[in-house]
Amino acid sequence: MSEPTSAPDPDRLLGRYGREGLLVPPAGAERDAGAAHDGSGRVALTLLPAERTVRVPPGVTVFDGASWNGVAIDSTCGGHGTCKKCKVRITSGSVPVSRLDARAFTAEQLRDGWRLACLAQATGDLTVDVPPLLTRPKAATVGVGRQVILRPAVQKRYVELDEPTLADQRTDLDRVLAAVDDLDLTADLYAIRRLPRVLRESDYRVTAVVVDETLVDVEPGDTRERLFGIAYDLGTTTVVATLLDLGTGTPAAVASQLNKQQPFGGDVITRISATMLDPAALGRLTSAAHETLAELAAEVCAEAGVDPREVYEVALAGNATMTALALGVDPEPLGVAPFVMSCAVPPVVPAAELGLALHPGARVTIFPALGAYVGGDIVAGVLATGMDRDKRLRLFVDVGTNCEIVLGDGERIVSTAAPAGPAFEGGAIRCGMRAADGAIETVRVDPAEGAVTLGVIGDVAAAGLCGSGLVDAVAELVKAGLLDASGRFVTDEAAAAATPRLAERLTKIGDERVFMLSETVYLSQRDVRELQFAKAAIATGWSLLLEEFGAAPGDVAQVLLAGSFGSYLSPAAAIRIGLVPKLPVLRIVSAGNVAGEGAKMALLSRREREGALALREEVRYLELSDRADFNDKFVDQLAFPQ
Amino acid sequence: MSEPTSAPDPDRLLGRYGREGLLVPPAGAERDAGAAHDGSGRVALTLLPAERTVRVPPGVTVFDGASWNGVAIDSTCGGHGTCKKCKVRITSGSVPVSRLDARAFTAEQLRDGWRLACLAQATGDLTVDVPPLLTRPKAATVGVGRQVILRPAVQKRYVELDEPTLADQRTDLDRVLAAVDDLDLTADLYAIRRLPRVLRESDYRVTAVVVDETLVDVEPGDTRERLFGIAYDLGTTTVVATLLDLGTGTPAAVASQLNKQQPFGGDVITRISATMLDPAALGRLTSAAHETLAELAAEVCAEAGVDPREVYEVALAGNATMTALALGVDPEPLGVAPFVMSCAVPPVVPAAELGLALHPGARVTIFPALGAYVGGDIVAGVLATGMDRDKRLRLFVDVGTNCEIVLGDGERIVSTAAPAGPAFEGGAIRCGMRAADGAIETVRVDPAEGAVTLGVIGDVAAAGLCGSGLVDAVAELVKAGLLDASGRFVTDEAAAAATPRLAERLTKIGDERVFMLSETVYLSQRDVRELQFAKAAIATGWSLLLEEFGAAPGDVAQVLLAGSFGSYLSPAAAIRIGLVPKLPVLRIVSAGNVAGEGAKMALLSRREREGALALREEVRYLELSDRADFNDKFVDQLAFPQ
Repeated sequence: MSEPTSAPDPDRLLGRYGREGLLVPPAGAERDAGAAHDGSGRVALTLLPAERTVRVPPGVTVFDGASWNGVAIDSTCGGHGTCKKCKVRITSGSVPVSRLDARAFTAEQLRDGWRLACLAQATGDLTVDVPPLLTRPKAATVGVGRQVILRPAVQKRYVELDEPTLADQRTDLDRVLAAVDDLDLTADLYAIRRLPRVLRESDYRVTAVVVDETLVDVEPGDTRERLFGIAYDLGTTTVVATLLDLGTGTPAAVASQLNKQQPFGGDVITRISATMLDPAALGRLTSAAHETLAELAAEVCAEAGVDPREVYEVALAGNATMTALALGVDPEPLGVAPFVMSCAVPPVVPAAELGLALHPGARVTIFPALGAYVGGDIVAGVLATGMDRDKRLRLFVDVGTNCEIVLGDGERIVSTAAPAGPAFEGGAIRCGMRAADGAIETVRVDPAEGAVTLGVIGDVAAAGLCGSGLVDAVAELVKAGLLDASGRFVTDEAAAAATPRLAERLTKIGDERVFMLSETVYLSQRDVRELQFAKAAIATGWSLLLEEFGAAPGDVAQVLLAGSFGSYLSPAAAIRIGLVPKLPVLRIVSAGNVAGEGAKMALLSRREREGALALREEVRYLELSDRADFNDKFVDQLAFPQ
Repeated sequence: MSEPTSAPDPDRLLGRYGREGLLVPPAGAERDAGAAHDGSGRVALTLLPAERTVRVPPGVTVFDGASWNGVAIDSTCGGHGTCKKCKVRITSGSVPVSRLDARAFTAEQLRDGWRLACLAQATGDLTVDVPPLLTRPKAATVGVGRQVILRPAVQKRYVELDEPTLADQRTDLDRVLAAVDDLDLTADLYAIRRLPRVLRESDYRVTAVVVDETLVDVEPGDTRERLFGIAYDLGTTTVVATLLDLGTGTPAAVASQLNKQQPFGGDVITRISATMLDPAALGRLTSAAHETLAELAAEVCAEAGVDPREVYEVALAGNATMTALALGVDPEPLGVAPFVMSCAVPPVVPAAELGLALHPGARVTIFPALGAYVGGDIVAGVLATGMDRDKRLRLFVDVGTNCEIVLGDGERIVSTAAPAGPAFEGGAIRCGMRAADGAIETVRVDPAEGAVTLGVIGDVAAAGLCGSGLVDAVAELVKAGLLDASGRFVTDEAAAAATPRLAERLTKIGDERVFMLSETVYLSQRDVRELQFAKAAIATGWSLLLEEFGAAPGDVAQVLLAGSFGSYLSPAAAIRIGLVPKLPVLRIVSAGNVAGEGAKMALLSRREREGALALREEVRYLELSDRADFNDKFVDQLAFPQ
């Protein structure tokens, strides 16, 4: 089924990242109504005896609200109404009696307020008495201080079955399902194929392997200890895989490698462009992604001594383009106006669809996107940082070619995407390079000593400047008085007056003023402008989000710098150039690989996985190009803070 | 994942068909409780203005009850609560207000009894006013006089969509789904892959292809006219495929061929045995089934000029062994006591799992089984003959090595399996052969003329005796007085007295008395005994079912002879040897390929498809080996009726 391909036209790649697109936004642009929930109007859920009050979106179940906030309620089915163990008593507020409540409780108990927590929706404020746990569920700390109760979608149950007789001719499947009747399961064909032999060869002592509501396998004997999942952060540059022991919540192995799509281009736009120029490129990009994922899977399994067939679930977080390419979906409409995704919530697919040879029943949960430029990686990051739950005013900034910004206070949560351009990746910078061996990643300038101290990646001579080095260099030169607030190199005279011992590094290459960082690596006037454009786009983004909240920059309790670049950025330098609000430096936190952490959470708890989907309803997207005041704000943000 | 194979032990094949198993049933054998619903306690559903009263199992929805009985109610979603078009008014009896009712109707309408028919369960007798149809649904006559309203699971919708703009950045998928919002759909990955290109290349004029609740494709332009499904009757001997135009309900092509599993053995037991003797045999049997299905698919598509990618659904009916082998499930436990299936309700699988290269979204619905020896073919046959709905007392007999018998009167329905042995397939018969060229299929004996007239298949000399010829021969010789009621050839003297012109054909081969049908083909005393055992097993089956109903053989209004063998059997001969109750010959009907008809119905109507599943709850299974009186009954039935 090859389809006719229209002649590729790279000019159609209207620069989402181009200057024109940035400064001349199309008028009247609006996001789709589905993502335009305003996020307000939460209800209070008070959990006794802990006396813990949490605020949740109306309609969330008591079970979910408690789980998301680290309060465990008994359950073996994971909150799907089948095990009837999540009994709680509503002591104030009203919850109607559900069909299953009527079966689980006596009329008197119902009058007393007893309900199944997994069916009890909080449509108004509630106080709920939670009985002590019969079994203490395990929990794990992941993401940015998030405590997650271990309730993975993957479960193993060891059962000892009666052998069939002429008096008991139940099918093999019915026999297994009857032994796990707190779950309401259907069976994969693979499990049905395995049943006759495995049951009979193991004397009817088997382990049922369940993923969500599906029986995916029966294994001989007791294999409950062996239960793994892989969490992927599918980055444009780097792909990280974490093999998780789903029984304990601990990582069994971690590995990372460059995305094998690199030869097609360094960023999403060049890769989208590749698919437009060559009809065969989509297939090759998809294969490259699959190979990357498969090699990482093999690596983490080998390192931890885990059979790939013991991996029963995969979670993957990536931006909209990486997700489309991994699924073999044509990304072209993501790269040209009006920037449209094929779908926002990818279907759950068999692991084999991503080229992964894991358990045949293993499925991949892919994080949903909020928009073409606020992808699943950001949704995973929001989940991992608890942006939707923390009551403090927090700002999440994932710095990159496309910069995603999220602001939340536990009541409301708003996001936007700022087209920062390639400066942070070393692109469009004279001596720019990726954060690889030879890249200057830190710069310290001592005006008094006249010393420039460079931190270089690897044990090699400086060969270029990566993003964090660029930010450092500019910040230090501003501090040293060699760059003025407008971003212009000061005159030679002013330089000689300010820091005579550094002034000689300020010179010209061709017609352009440059500052020599080393004998070969320099920072040019145009480089500074590139960085100014980039940071102004970002600052315009967060300042508009703050306006939405009626908050001032100083009100922000915490800034989370996310993404691999964000982790390396110096908080002090980020403040100095105005990339983040002017705050005490301790409020700026490098959050690390939050997309990967979100993917881990999705594996450890199906409630968290569903929480990620709920974020699509909760997070409002603010389109920057929709703002009449964007250009003014942008120009205001070009200068460096005084 | 090859699994260790236990050494095959053919002795474990306790003859389900062996004399021992037949005459010495294990004591206390019972069927599983799941199948032990007694089928009684139906409720009456009176449909106005037609004033048609139908009896349905409690809990069936008004929509299903009406559909199953040929009364159409408006609907575009096929009865899944999403289109809200199936509005009816309950004029007597009570139906609670559902959540969707509350949205679809005003408070006054609800008080007046208005409900959505697809959610209104008949838990007691109801009278329902059905508004006139806004659109006249098509219907087709299939099976034994069954009128089926065309509501296939496969639907096509032509939509003209607005192009996306910066003001309307909805995803491609959301755009399509919004245009078919009377359905609540999820999308296959394949459809998601197709969306970006197909939407843009067809100017947003596309046809959405839906199977059940899944969007499986978007096709450029208006393709609503092209909508096909394949119904398979997967027989042990013969496989029949019917390509159905799902838009009109008419067959576009039919083809049949021998099951390519034939080299492994002629009946299910020899094929099961093959898998026990050779670990590789299961894979080869599965491949043989797939090749048979695939060749037939190619043949019917070519004949009708249909692209295989225009086939969006498959329905398949087969016995439990054929179903297991097609799915690659080890059939061994079906062949040895206690005769256990891996599963009774096969999962819906992609057509590719059965080796079929049809539309990538095509799924296969496989008929569920009632037991290891009352398989999906019988469930399909019950559906096609309306055994569960017709108010007459009707007996369904599928004659074969394993003979399945069903008795129903529209209120109750009971089934059993009688191990008839291979006589009807020509097995264990001296001159026995399959119904192929050279087989004697009819025998007429004229005692007065001394003439024996043989009907031989093909334009060739008689080479042997197939099942229908065997029945005919025995029936005619009983009528001619050459066989006595006990099944013994009369003495030469008695023969000479009775029909002198035929007596010379009564002779001996070795020690055995035989009747020469032709110069080479004969009927032996032992052949007669084999047939007696076979027909006695069947007659014991239906006589015990009649006892369950408190009915006499003469009360039976209709006997349906099903299966390929049943269609060729002479009703008069069947009566004469006592294979069916002694009734006026017009009450004996050759029902033909009812399994294939049931498969067609499942394609034409998802309500019928769901009706097949409901049969698992309705049909009670009676285990013959469970009866203390079995042996006495069996011996009573050995003789031929006087």
